[in-house]
Amino acid sequence: MRQITGLSNPTVKYLRSLRDKKHRKREQRFMAEGLRLLTDARETGRLPETLVMAERREHHPLLDALIVDVERAGGDVIEVSEAALEKITGKENPQAVCGVFAEFDTSLGKIDRAASPLILVAQAMRDPGNLGTMLRTADAVGAGGLVLIDDCADPFSVEAVRASMGAIFTVPLAQARWDEFRGWLRAGPGQLVAASLRESHDYRTAAYAAPCFVMVGNESRGLPEEYEMECDLRVHMPMRGRADSLNAAVAGAVLAYEVLAKIG
Amino acid sequence: MRQITGLSNPTVKYLRSLRDKKHRKREQRFMAEGLRLLTDARETGRLPETLVMAERREHHPLLDALIVDVERAGGDVIEVSEAALEKITGKENPQAVCGVFAEFDTSLGKIDRAASPLILVAQAMRDPGNLGTMLRTADAVGAGGLVLIDDCADPFSVEAVRASMGAIFTVPLAQARWDEFRGWLRAGPGQLVAASLRESHDYRTAAYAAPCFVMVGNESRGLPEEYEMECDLRVHMPMRGRADSLNAAVAGAVLAYEVLAKIG
Repeated sequence: MRQITGLSNPTVKYLRSLRDKKHRKREQRFMAEGLRLLTDARETGRLPETLVMAERREHHPLLDALIVDVERAGGDVIEVSEAALEKITGKENPQAVCGVFAEFDTSLGKIDRAASPLILVAQAMRDPGNLGTMLRTADAVGAGGLVLIDDCADPFSVEAVRASMGAIFTVPLAQARWDEFRGWLRAGPGQLVAASLRESHDYRTAAYAAPCFVMVGNESRGLPEEYEMECDLRVHMPMRGRADSLNAAVAGAVLAYEVLAKIG
Repeated sequence: MRQITGLSNPTVKYLRSLRDKKHRKREQRFMAEGLRLLTDARETGRLPETLVMAERREHHPLLDALIVDVERAGGDVIEVSEAALEKITGKENPQAVCGVFAEFDTSLGKIDRAASPLILVAQAMRDPGNLGTMLRTADAVGAGGLVLIDDCADPFSVEAVRASMGAIFTVPLAQARWDEFRGWLRAGPGQLVAASLRESHDYRTAAYAAPCFVMVGNESRGLPEEYEMECDLRVHMPMRGRADSLNAAVAGAVLAYEVLAKIG
């Protein structure tokens, strides 16, 4: 463990820069905050390359275990002032510990369609909170993964990681363009399902089949028509209100739980 | 319609101050942004007291209709520079129009338990995005309202209003302390239901009964034990993952759609 003092230290600057997407992408590193998230990561076999903690902190056996594991793996364990931690995380009263992880491989090969009857797909989901929520839902339903299609929010952003409540470390994650995904999907078994108003079935009585890929679209525009028409099954949920829409992550979860009840 | 120039005009300062909860609560006013939200409001009979728009804007028949209605109702219609609109909304590239509304009465008397088989309840929900999402879900399932228990996020904050996608104007909304809510609930028919791990039933086969009050708890702590034990029915959803939890707004929606399918 080493101490770093001052706010202009190069390591502090480097850590702070990871909050910017541009730097994060260049470095292929991301940050997770809080002992709970870091412990979730450790329990799934992922350790931060760099572990940063406040000089003044309460002792906690899980933090001690984390420090031992990171040092044993050759990682960097750093103590900084609270002011430096505020600079790094961009928050007042930051959590007492955060860690820098290497981004994962998110190629489609990471998805095993035999691992679960259900896989989630999000297309052009722009809100990092929604994206993290989808990861969390994927964890809860035991999905075989989450596939991000086209220009989604960055799943490694602080907001998405936080909203995932640790699921970023546990749920297989892939990123692909539509054509690439479609080619991969059609090269094996898989039923592509989406909520749609076009020639769609009642979502409660529709014939789901494993492995079922449940796809939701962009928050404002929904799915492109071409993507809807590629689906093997289109379903609709009751809309009793005036607005005729649900939050995208909510719609995905309602559908995922229905599929889970039928073929899970 | 009147033009306001300059950023230090008292009206601009007043409008800008409504972004702060303290000022908003004192004035009992809130702001909604964008022609779509304002049109939603107009269609439900709610007009802004003050309508603010950018000098440079595209003409739109719905905006023209809004201007006519606000002026006819004696409201204030104001044109400002884009810089002033940025100051008011706190956003770069703000929407071209926003409106100031008087807060609604949110007493429990606003909830009509005979209006729908389903009413949503959120306890100590702290995230304004989640709260707006709950309003949107309440609209989609045709709920008779959303009841906010204890210290929830402010439903009239810009973030909650935005996440509600107009449902702030369409869904009956009440705010109450737990004891007040419980007294009101028990003075009439109503089944209180919550997700719980204590002596709970499978959410797919549980015996829901109208009017069914579906309650979700705080994002990190869930519901207090006392509140769970007051429920007439406790249910559980499958948790196949490692984290054993769902986003609170997601859990509420999955449960609400199940109740809707059974007794809606």
